[in-house]
Amino acid sequence: MDALKMRILTDGRNLGNGILKVDGFINHQVDPVLIDACGRELAGRFGNLRATKVLTAEISGIAPALTTALHLGIPIVYARKTKPITMPNQVFLTLAPSHTKGRMVELIVSPEYLSKDERVLIIDDFLATGQTIAGLAQLAQAAGATVVGIGAVIEKIFEGGREFLRPLGVPIESLARISDMSEGRILFAD
Amino acid sequence: MDALKMRILTDGRNLGNGILKVDGFINHQVDPVLIDACGRELAGRFGNLRATKVLTAEISGIAPALTTALHLGIPIVYARKTKPITMPNQVFLTLAPSHTKGRMVELIVSPEYLSKDERVLIIDDFLATGQTIAGLAQLAQAAGATVVGIGAVIEKIFEGGREFLRPLGVPIESLARISDMSEGRILFAD
Repeated sequence: MDALKMRILTDGRNLGNGILKVDGFINHQVDPVLIDACGRELAGRFGNLRATKVLTAEISGIAPALTTALHLGIPIVYARKTKPITMPNQVFLTLAPSHTKGRMVELIVSPEYLSKDERVLIIDDFLATGQTIAGLAQLAQAAGATVVGIGAVIEKIFEGGREFLRPLGVPIESLARISDMSEGRILFAD
Repeated sequence: MDALKMRILTDGRNLGNGILKVDGFINHQVDPVLIDACGRELAGRFGNLRATKVLTAEISGIAPALTTALHLGIPIVYARKTKPITMPNQVFLTLAPSHTKGRMVELIVSPEYLSKDERVLIIDDFLATGQTIAGLAQLAQAAGATVVGIGAVIEKIFEGGREFLRPLGVPIESLARISDMSEGRILFAD
């Protein structure tokens, strides 16, 4: 998606060690027009999957998942990292490593909003190692739901997430595929 | 806003102690069509303020703030509760009490995305005691920015937030004003 790639090149920053800072338009400050366009594009790519729900993880997955869900006309559920008092005691819970926290975090979904007849499209801001997305897939599977697709705004190809998630056997789409961030570069695959 | 009030009556749950569960359409599962309509309505009510930025707090403020910002065509910044590694060392930080965690939480904004010429519209899912919103106002003021308005999806009038925030001297709008949650009731003010 050209508008996204241009924005990454102008406002993104390569902080080294594979860390791409996109705090100016995706992760802390959000450009709603760009994120809406990303959601429209992801919704278009997955339009034939008959997804019934978008699943993401708080916090930074919420914006792209919301706009994708808006364009598909289906609800979004965001997995919580702490259990709010409004959630029942019996939940679906899995652990996933947090890139930014350097430890495992919990991903929690209430069984009220994920059931066995659901067709789940997983959306996140980044596809990197794929471990958060794998955690979301496990939550869906724990509910007996079917994962039907995986979408990300930005993919860091060199972290291998696409291969890691391939056993799920579902289409994987990302809007900006970065192949190289060594020596300060930000190079796209296509 | 009638569609919102109807949804609160059909899918919301009064858990007692003033806790309104809206996890089915705002806080865990999100109805993107409803939240987009809420954003459109808030944007309309604040359309004459010449706001340059929407400010909210992660996590549950993100969805209504994003759709409001989308309809206003301005960026949104969400205050973080933990400082990510991509954020500079020098930040704006304030403390606010967390209703659901029962302790103080940090609200952190990078000075990169909040500056003194900014006109800030604060949006959150709930206006209850007003303390989170007051914390966001303090962040904006620390940056030298001007708070121009405050909007919430749901207001719990009986928690007094509107009076608490009145000294800020800005318009305060909410889309569903609940006046009474005693004895299992959910009563609207108008």
